[in-house]
Amino acid sequence: MMNADLSKYNVRTDLALEAQEMATQGQQNGQVPGVWSESESADGITISRMEIKDEQGAQQIGKMIGHYVTLEVPELREGDTTLQDKVATSFAREFEAFLKRIGINKTSSVLIVGLGNWNVTPDALGPIVVENIMVTRHYFELMPDQVSPGYRPVSAVAPGVLGTTGIESSDIVQGIVERAKPDLVIAVDALAAKSLDRVNTTIQIADTGIHPGSGIGNKRKGLTKEILGVPCIGIGVPTVVYASTIVNNTMDMVFEHMKKHTPNTDPLFGVFGKMEENERLELVKEVLNPLGHDLLVTPKEIDKFMEDIANVIASGLNAALHEAVDTDNVAAYTH
Amino acid sequence: MMNADLSKYNVRTDLALEAQEMATQGQQNGQVPGVWSESESADGITISRMEIKDEQGAQQIGKMIGHYVTLEVPELREGDTTLQDKVATSFAREFEAFLKRIGINKTSSVLIVGLGNWNVTPDALGPIVVENIMVTRHYFELMPDQVSPGYRPVSAVAPGVLGTTGIESSDIVQGIVERAKPDLVIAVDALAAKSLDRVNTTIQIADTGIHPGSGIGNKRKGLTKEILGVPCIGIGVPTVVYASTIVNNTMDMVFEHMKKHTPNTDPLFGVFGKMEENERLELVKEVLNPLGHDLLVTPKEIDKFMEDIANVIASGLNAALHEAVDTDNVAAYTH
Amino acid sequence: MMNADLSKYNVRTDLALEAQEMATQGQQNGQVPGVWSESESADGITISRMEIKDEQGAQQIGKMIGHYVTLEVPELREGDTTLQDKVATSFAREFEAFLKRIGINKTSSVLIVGLGNWNVTPDALGPIVVENIMVTRHYFELMPDQVSPGYRPVSAVAPGVLGTTGIESSDIVQGIVERAKPDLVIAVDALAAKSLDRVNTTIQIADTGIHPGSGIGNKRKGLTKEILGVPCIGIGVPTVVYASTIVNNTMDMVFEHMKKHTPNTDPLFGVFGKMEENERLELVKEVLNPLGHDLLVTPKEIDKFMEDIANVIASGLNAALHEAVDTDNVAAYTH
Amino acid sequence: MMNADLSKYNVRTDLALEAQEMATQGQQNGQVPGVWSESESADGITISRMEIKDEQGAQQIGKMIGHYVTLEVPELREGDTTLQDKVATSFAREFEAFLKRIGINKTSSVLIVGLGNWNVTPDALGPIVVENIMVTRHYFELMPDQVSPGYRPVSAVAPGVLGTTGIESSDIVQGIVERAKPDLVIAVDALAAKSLDRVNTTIQIADTGIHPGSGIGNKRKGLTKEILGVPCIGIGVPTVVYASTIVNNTMDMVFEHMKKHTPNTDPLFGVFGKMEENERLELVKEVLNPLGHDLLVTPKEIDKFMEDIANVIASGLNAALHEAVDTDNVAAYTH
Repeated sequence: MMNADLSKYNVRTDLALEAQEMATQGQQNGQVPGVWSESESADGITISRMEIKDEQGAQQIGKMIGHYVTLEVPELREGDTTLQDKVATSFAREFEAFLKRIGINKTSSVLIVGLGNWNVTPDALGPIVVENIMVTRHYFELMPDQVSPGYRPVSAVAPGVLGTTGIESSDIVQGIVERAKPDLVIAVDALAAKSLDRVNTTIQIADTGIHPGSGIGNKRKGLTKEILGVPCIGIGVPTVVYASTIVNNTMDMVFEHMKKHTPNTDPLFGVFGKMEENERLELVKEVLNPLGHDLLVTPKEIDKFMEDIANVIASGLNAALHEAVDTDNVAAYTH
Repeated sequence: MMNADLSKYNVRTDLALEAQEMATQGQQNGQVPGVWSESESADGITISRMEIKDEQGAQQIGKMIGHYVTLEVPELREGDTTLQDKVATSFAREFEAFLKRIGINKTSSVLIVGLGNWNVTPDALGPIVVENIMVTRHYFELMPDQVSPGYRPVSAVAPGVLGTTGIESSDIVQGIVERAKPDLVIAVDALAAKSLDRVNTTIQIADTGIHPGSGIGNKRKGLTKEILGVPCIGIGVPTVVYASTIVNNTMDMVFEHMKKHTPNTDPLFGVFGKMEENERLELVKEVLNPLGHDLLVTPKEIDKFMEDIANVIASGLNAALHEAVDTDNVAAYTH
Repeated sequence: MMNADLSKYNVRTDLALEAQEMATQGQQNGQVPGVWSESESADGITISRMEIKDEQGAQQIGKMIGHYVTLEVPELREGDTTLQDKVATSFAREFEAFLKRIGINKTSSVLIVGLGNWNVTPDALGPIVVENIMVTRHYFELMPDQVSPGYRPVSAVAPGVLGTTGIESSDIVQGIVERAKPDLVIAVDALAAKSLDRVNTTIQIADTGIHPGSGIGNKRKGLTKEILGVPCIGIGVPTVVYASTIVNNTMDMVFEHMKKHTPNTDPLFGVFGKMEENERLELVKEVLNPLGHDLLVTPKEIDKFMEDIANVIASGLNAALHEAVDTDNVAAYTH
Repeated sequence: MMNADLSKYNVRTDLALEAQEMATQGQQNGQVPGVWSESESADGITISRMEIKDEQGAQQIGKMIGHYVTLEVPELREGDTTLQDKVATSFAREFEAFLKRIGINKTSSVLIVGLGNWNVTPDALGPIVVENIMVTRHYFELMPDQVSPGYRPVSAVAPGVLGTTGIESSDIVQGIVERAKPDLVIAVDALAAKSLDRVNTTIQIADTGIHPGSGIGNKRKGLTKEILGVPCIGIGVPTVVYASTIVNNTMDMVFEHMKKHTPNTDPLFGVFGKMEENERLELVKEVLNPLGHDLLVTPKEIDKFMEDIANVIASGLNAALHEAVDTDNVAAYTH
């Protein structure tokens, strides 16, 4: 099976949406048994919801059983604050619905974990989000009688990365969970994208947690319900892309482009043009790797892009987690 | 007893040296039963070592039984990098001796905890130190055979503050200690000073850990051997001072100044001039507090002062903790 | 004359309002010949407008002939974003009226100069404001036909300080004015306060420019119409205060406090209590200075305070300078 | 002529060395009339010196008449501080020799201009260098008799970018030059690279100044002797690369790689494999541009890379410009 073959390769995507696209490529109806999905678009925002229901679906897609929501906003890098507010509101609404769908109730306490490295801009998503989260847990601990209705206990930590702490972030989070005893962990992380146009324009929500090797850093242990003892929702944004991925994607686009003009592109691209995408990627990597050229890269304007998308997520979480925080003015709670 | 009276007041000092000075004020020989102390000065650095040996000494000084070392460097705010290097080297030597004195051996694993708030400059001592620590624990965990001799496992975390995480930093550290299992915790924290000239010129080392209410933030739980299960050394630097303390200190200096010229200062200062220091401080606080004027303040140049002293401590710790890191070029390991 | 005597002393205030208060202290009606003033309070914001009309008024107040507006917002340090938005709106309205009063029309081009040092938090007011200014001059230069109505050409620079550039900021600004040819310069600067409660709660607008020795840094040349060839409005915020000023102010407050309870405070404070304020200040400085203790200090939370007030000023300027920018949503234009 | 053809294309390189390589590609001896060049390698540092002597040479290379020095340090991104110190020393030595070669004497006053945008990490080279420059001009102005021998007047400014100031940086610098009257301007700027491995590993020195359209930002006016009235040396570091450039370079590498194994690659790559490099680049751009995919990208670790190379340049300049600053301990003058 082609799909099975594909899953053999490391497709270098942390996004279920991309995995699904690859799995259904060339198929008629785009339906995969054991997988439910729907999507809608409005105001420049495409929202895709997917549930991988059983092992068969998981096999086909190459992703774990679970719920996935993806927001795609191609114009999100344009710096348009009106659009950013809309995305924050959409994110809040989706996240609230997501919590309901997976059975988290409105008073459950939440620990938000901002994974990644402060000092590496494209890896700083988690820490920047955490900095803009409205934390309330201490009010519930210190003066439970005085907390207004419409809030739940929220705490937030940025555990750092192995290279700067000497401790697996997974271990740090486990230790904190054991002491702070949240009902739910939400882990925010930067991801590697499968194409440059995904970078800082896509947000994924998944109830499958964070897995070893996912995200930008080299995690060796994950953050999952098995490890933490409480459910873990992962929020991921692609912020970097491999040079080899850029090359491979672009060659695809070049081939597609030429095909529009020339029915038979064989003389144009020879064997190279007929390679499977993954074969070609392997070839590109084979050439770039020994030279140390297969770097992870990020757009020049990454500082601004990170600030913008982190604010969208933090605003959205603040509104989704606290009923008293209105999705209409959600952006007011961050800076 | 005057000393007993003094200890009743909150003297607002986290420094054992200041507590000792207050306890021995007006005494002949400056010796307190149950307390051993010595001090030496060279190159603009005064090093004071003290041991409070028993409950009687603790009562007299108003500090816990334990070992204390203080480095005073009045010129440390001048921005002289040569002096900073000397202080880092002195600190390293003192810290190494301190570890030996309290029975920590050369291979014990260490977790360095940087208390305080990244976003509040005078409270950022801990986080800045942590950022410049050479962490090695992960090498010992992942490839123990390949670690060169002369290193020990060191890890480092900045747990944040209650107001931004929603969790007591003490709880976070406890959770991390339970997972990372260090033999020793070293907690770095910013303190309130009893006088403006102490600010960013004094470093205290103590094996009594961090206690509730000490430091700048409002800690309600401490970091001690009792809580953590392993010894905890506190490293503290005064970085702020109360407005009321400035007023009180200055009035003292004004009185002293006038006494040099005028034998009888009664007509000059009346009752005010004859008040006990603490009485006067209470009066000043009584006036300032209701108006919200008793702020904690810090020198205008605090950004640079914090960077300099944090580098001194980080360099010193790197050299003291790893035999392979030389105290001669200790400054090279931080930036 | 007492007032004349007062002006002899360096009263260490850059605020006309404080100068006026000192000048009218002890007077019946608070009116000074040659000086017009009015003030109003609402929503926790007190606005004082003053015009020093002639040389006599200038002599009395100890400030130059010119227009002055001061906003005092005692609660501005509380972190209340609703109040901050109100202050931004008030500031915008006052600034717009100020421009009209001094004859600047709605299409005049403006250069905003952010004085001060990026790396010294309490001196970074100017640079932070500049970073949040909506600049438009380049659109007028590059595509004048396409600029929407309701905007004027605005440019903004942060010239740095003598210690980091090696050039007087006044010289840098002069050079830029000669090339960019604005009709008006607005210079934003941090000031030394005469009391701790002024710090980051007061904003002054004046059409007298920036004068040598004012502000926190040691300026030797000013920014005035004489030097620049175009009018210069100074916007100032006190962000630091001398330790000696804190002491002196507090002693005043102590004396006042005691007087409420004890009609005759002579036995309480002796000669000291009867000194002129300036005499006492000189005494305090005489004691603190030789010890290097008369530091400029700033509240511990200065990072947040600076960000808040800089955003108020930047939002206010954006709304005041561009008709198309609405004072209702003025805060949306900064981050 | 192939070379002439090449110069027609925008080869998107600001580096004379790359221009030379392209000009001599496929030639026997690599010599171009009117161009002198030499290079040497040691300790992982390759230094290339070139002089374009006449119009013929300029035509051939596609660069202006002038002196060029390039330092290539492929390992410079590894974070090795010993190597960084060596590069700083080499840079200082080369820069000193460069000044001598172009006739700048040891007492000439220098203005260092850090071009680029503080808030865009890969464009912040100039501002970061400026922050680490030892400025001395004000000492010469304020107390000329007290300046120790071995120093010259150095000033340094970061003029910002058009998008944040509203004024061309060239205009700002012109204005400052007219007031500060330096004998020489040194402009530091970030460049776009022609290949990913150049990014933050290459430093170019040239006495041809900064030209419109060079660097990362969209400059419309340059910094040259003609404009400024004094000589202008440009120091440039490639910090970003176009996605299309990555694709094109990689395809070259893939072709080269395959040629080693297969003498005739025609069946492998068809027409595509036989295209001229520039033709292929145009094709790639044609495909990527309409989709907004031809982004400028930078390595994920750009924050650290910028800090490292900016320190190398600042240290090198400090040592090269002041005889009293020793190239042996050059790194001590920056932080």
